[in-house]
Amino acid sequence: MSGPILVINPNSSEEVTQGLRDALSGMMFPGDPEIECVTIKESPLGIMSQRDVDEAGLRTGALIESRPDASAYVLACYSQPGLDLARSLTAAPVYGIQDAGVLSALAVADLFGVIAVAEISIPRHLRNLRRLGVEGRLAGEVALDGTISVAQSGHGEESYSALVKAGAKLRQMGAGAIVLGCAGMSGHRLRLERQLGVRVIDPTQAAVAMALGGLLSQKP
Amino acid sequence: MSGPILVINPNSSEEVTQGLRDALSGMMFPGDPEIECVTIKESPLGIMSQRDVDEAGLRTGALIESRPDASAYVLACYSQPGLDLARSLTAAPVYGIQDAGVLSALAVADLFGVIAVAEISIPRHLRNLRRLGVEGRLAGEVALDGTISVAQSGHGEESYSALVKAGAKLRQMGAGAIVLGCAGMSGHRLRLERQLGVRVIDPTQAAVAMALGGLLSQKP
Amino acid sequence: MSGPILVINPNSSEEVTQGLRDALSGMMFPGDPEIECVTIKESPLGIMSQRDVDEAGLRTGALIESRPDASAYVLACYSQPGLDLARSLTAAPVYGIQDAGVLSALAVADLFGVIAVAEISIPRHLRNLRRLGVEGRLAGEVALDGTISVAQSGHGEESYSALVKAGAKLRQMGAGAIVLGCAGMSGHRLRLERQLGVRVIDPTQAAVAMALGGLLSQKP
Amino acid sequence: MSGPILVINPNSSEEVTQGLRDALSGMMFPGDPEIECVTIKESPLGIMSQRDVDEAGLRTGALIESRPDASAYVLACYSQPGLDLARSLTAAPVYGIQDAGVLSALAVADLFGVIAVAEISIPRHLRNLRRLGVEGRLAGEVALDGTISVAQSGHGEESYSALVKAGAKLRQMGAGAIVLGCAGMSGHRLRLERQLGVRVIDPTQAAVAMALGGLLSQKP
Amino acid sequence: MSGPILVINPNSSEEVTQGLRDALSGMMFPGDPEIECVTIKESPLGIMSQRDVDEAGLRTGALIESRPDASAYVLACYSQPGLDLARSLTAAPVYGIQDAGVLSALAVADLFGVIAVAEISIPRHLRNLRRLGVEGRLAGEVALDGTISVAQSGHGEESYSALVKAGAKLRQMGAGAIVLGCAGMSGHRLRLERQLGVRVIDPTQAAVAMALGGLLSQKP
Amino acid sequence: MSGPILVINPNSSEEVTQGLRDALSGMMFPGDPEIECVTIKESPLGIMSQRDVDEAGLRTGALIESRPDASAYVLACYSQPGLDLARSLTAAPVYGIQDAGVLSALAVADLFGVIAVAEISIPRHLRNLRRLGVEGRLAGEVALDGTISVAQSGHGEESYSALVKAGAKLRQMGAGAIVLGCAGMSGHRLRLERQLGVRVIDPTQAAVAMALGGLLSQKP
Repeated sequence: MSGPILVINPNSSEEVTQGLRDALSGMMFPGDPEIECVTIKESPLGIMSQRDVDEAGLRTGALIESRPDASAYVLACYSQPGLDLARSLTAAPVYGIQDAGVLSALAVADLFGVIAVAEISIPRHLRNLRRLGVEGRLAGEVALDGTISVAQSGHGEESYSALVKAGAKLRQMGAGAIVLGCAGMSGHRLRLERQLGVRVIDPTQAAVAMALGGLLSQKP
Repeated sequence: MSGPILVINPNSSEEVTQGLRDALSGMMFPGDPEIECVTIKESPLGIMSQRDVDEAGLRTGALIESRPDASAYVLACYSQPGLDLARSLTAAPVYGIQDAGVLSALAVADLFGVIAVAEISIPRHLRNLRRLGVEGRLAGEVALDGTISVAQSGHGEESYSALVKAGAKLRQMGAGAIVLGCAGMSGHRLRLERQLGVRVIDPTQAAVAMALGGLLSQKP
Repeated sequence: MSGPILVINPNSSEEVTQGLRDALSGMMFPGDPEIECVTIKESPLGIMSQRDVDEAGLRTGALIESRPDASAYVLACYSQPGLDLARSLTAAPVYGIQDAGVLSALAVADLFGVIAVAEISIPRHLRNLRRLGVEGRLAGEVALDGTISVAQSGHGEESYSALVKAGAKLRQMGAGAIVLGCAGMSGHRLRLERQLGVRVIDPTQAAVAMALGGLLSQKP
Repeated sequence: MSGPILVINPNSSEEVTQGLRDALSGMMFPGDPEIECVTIKESPLGIMSQRDVDEAGLRTGALIESRPDASAYVLACYSQPGLDLARSLTAAPVYGIQDAGVLSALAVADLFGVIAVAEISIPRHLRNLRRLGVEGRLAGEVALDGTISVAQSGHGEESYSALVKAGAKLRQMGAGAIVLGCAGMSGHRLRLERQLGVRVIDPTQAAVAMALGGLLSQKP
Repeated sequence: MSGPILVINPNSSEEVTQGLRDALSGMMFPGDPEIECVTIKESPLGIMSQRDVDEAGLRTGALIESRPDASAYVLACYSQPGLDLARSLTAAPVYGIQDAGVLSALAVADLFGVIAVAEISIPRHLRNLRRLGVEGRLAGEVALDGTISVAQSGHGEESYSALVKAGAKLRQMGAGAIVLGCAGMSGHRLRLERQLGVRVIDPTQAAVAMALGGLLSQKP
Repeated sequence: MSGPILVINPNSSEEVTQGLRDALSGMMFPGDPEIECVTIKESPLGIMSQRDVDEAGLRTGALIESRPDASAYVLACYSQPGLDLARSLTAAPVYGIQDAGVLSALAVADLFGVIAVAEISIPRHLRNLRRLGVEGRLAGEVALDGTISVAQSGHGEESYSALVKAGAKLRQMGAGAIVLGCAGMSGHRLRLERQLGVRVIDPTQAAVAMALGGLLSQKP
């Protein structure tokens, strides 16, 4: 298994894909496995509606079939489009970033919180937490106030302030670790972690770490 | 945070510690963070009884206090001695390998199985799964037949055969991923994974991957 | 709200759609609301793989948008393709037959069993039961032995025998009601219920009954 | 099975029974099965205390034994008096309206809310939700303010305002569907549903729909 | 609070009531509070059917009202007839022996098993465990083989052998403590505990111990 | 089994041990079994930190080994130091007061609340409730305001006022019984119970009652 870890941005924003590369740059080493971030050009610029999710899922499946060389796949969207489909198409491990982020939070804290970009996605997240079976450990999920886009959520003082406010609220609700509920917020992760004083988990980094662990460990 | 990831073998067997180094060798890179495996010399050669666990827990705490330079700590024993104590002593993340291994299994499969070295440790593991809140996703836990020691469990054909037998039983019980329920089994991981056709997770590798993810990702 | 209850067969088999009409014939009255069963012609003859499910989901969404006149929608496939999408596209109630069938079983019995057409779909069903939050009341799920197709599952002595065998096993596992885990088995429902001596629930009938209840009850 | 669906009002208020008939009028068709609403004359005018519930339970059992001709039984009181007893006395399906209402809510929404007539009945309802196994999906239960009787709860502007207030609170708590926690509130159902913008479920209608589904579907 | 602990045998068998007195004789002290065991003469000789349970419940309520002098009440039947009613009638604590027995088992073991007199009562017990919220810790429930009556279950070699067989099966299922699922089995408790090597809990003794604890502790 | 019930105060405060004796004085009878309260002299005056808990656990184990004459052991600290260790060292029953207190509360009420001495111990308690499997029935846990020590918590008007305030809050959160979350609060139990109007449970008394029940009941 010498193929790359394929990190799939299911929207068509090259800016977001570049943000993923930046977030993962600390994990890229001269040796194997490569971490390759790809954009799905046919998608809209953002995955917002359920239709966006479902359409992106099929495109993700097609992409995975066109890249059988990969050693592992990471679905770098918190809605995890095409997770079940991907797993039906490949024997390689497939990580959804919501699952990976939340499970990583549970490895360091009793209760976790989630910061969502928008209120509308919270019920979707909750359904997935029930499916994952860990809803009992959710301290709460709080959305940014709605004027901030996915693309903006990882840059600039306005979004940082909103993240701090949401994070502080989650701490009050008992969260011992906070999961960033969107692939785009990673730019603020470290600063936010230091300010809040609890682990802040970027879910794409968490998923790639899990994938790396499975592959790196296979060296003889 | 430039300190090492400190992987703590809470028993006094240097052979086991060397096994950890071997298991983690694929994760050690020229750059930071270093992965340092240490032995607790005051402990017995194996952590078997509850007293062993509890005594090892205090020694783990003392070790952590003597090594404030570490960026993260991994408790490399499936009984996770001193996990709560460790977290009370440091702000750095502390990973127990049972929690990390099980949570990593849930990131790739619906139901997971566990291979224990001995029948006697299964109730202890179940208590921890309840505390972790994921007991509903356990397909089953199966013990090796009792003639195999922790030290032997990762080497040789006899222990390999026993692992294959246990793993096959877990697959029949519905396990989509299998967690090796002991830090010493890693030597058989890859071979077992290929034979069984499902992900086989070494919990120490899983914990170190999580720890690496948190640290690597902090590069600017 | 005078539009029909639109019962969507997400595969392209007119034979299956006609089977739905037969199953629902006892629920069609001279007055409103009409129960209209439609076929998605662009789909394959059966929904087997996860890709089939996901593609059918998008087609289901398109169909729903083309039929805004309906008062309620029933997704007549046990895999419930497009359930979340459908709910995002209409304010009218959308019923998935797995959810409706299982919830109806819980209204008459402590524990329920499910008869699946094929072994391969059981993990998919279990994921949905976790999402639904009622996995604790599942006595078990048993698959027909694999030589029987969806189309055959509701007709003929061979499939009937297989259903009886599966049902008897579920009774032994404690099931107080049995859900037919496929839209195609309804032809055997009544006969099976009488032979087994427990409620046997056709999930499409259960979903349409729920939909009817919501609409009929709105007469002034 | 040509007997009626027997809808049992376990209190002695003919006015309440007539309200049930009105609520179910949209479900009554020229053909079979008839929906017959009966009053238990020996009961008090309202089922308020636990003794009322338990005494009504025994009377319900006696009534069921005197009416072996029925095809299904609906216990039209949210406290479901005599549910276990009824099931021990007949092989026909017995529906309790709390169970049926709540399960119908789960078929259309992630989380449900309940409007109770009085604060005092909420713990009783919660015990039943635990027994039913779906307490994890309760957004909340809110009581009318205590000056409104069961009989009044389905008529007049005062009770309607109180229902709107309770329903709005439940929506804020995350309820995607609202169950009317009393057989007497049905008169306000449709108006409330339109004002709140979420499904509002009358539990008696929900139970009768389930019963009808089981019977109608048995036509050859 | 100087009144007795009233232990209510809800059937009319004086022999069973005398068995309760024998079981509790070790708990009776010269001082307060007295433990008084009473028979409900209007009941049948055994509580077998659901009707027996429900009728006994009302009689239990009447008895409690006639004995307001008691400091605590124990419902000495595993079906706990009238538990909710009793609590609605008195501010004194009311203990049902199933709840008390099971909760006492959880205080000494991870998983518990239950020995039922008859297969038919197991679903009733499971419903109560769900209501109690501890069904996740049930290792299993096993019934005696059906030829042994409630009265016989605590005396003689035949019933003792059946208890040993059931207990051994529960141990294999993982039970760390065993609850006798009937008020009549107490005669065999100590002998069975010694033979099986796990705690065997008589639920009436467990309930009275809890009641005693609440009362004894109130001495100044 | 004629040995005493050994009630172990794992801190070194003789004042606290005397408080235990006072709390249990109503349970001491002329006959067997004796209730013997012992202090662990090597411990600090209070068990506050996780290290205190873990160190006290080992000392508890040593004490138990030095007292094989006891019939039962009660770990009289809400953090239950050494519970698993103790159970590995003796076949006699070992009760932790948190488990016993909480389980006793569930025997008399639907939802329970806990009063903690300090905010910092609440997450520790919650982890244990998850392990115990009853977290779903917790109405809430409220801490005294932080200026009151363990030793003070059972004496004086200041601590009583704080307990009343915390208890009133828990009642509003739905608690039907309140567990005192510390071995030192027993002095206020009865007065608090009368003022709040719900059962207030001293966990040491609850544990000793359970232990007594198991021993007293063994008289022939």
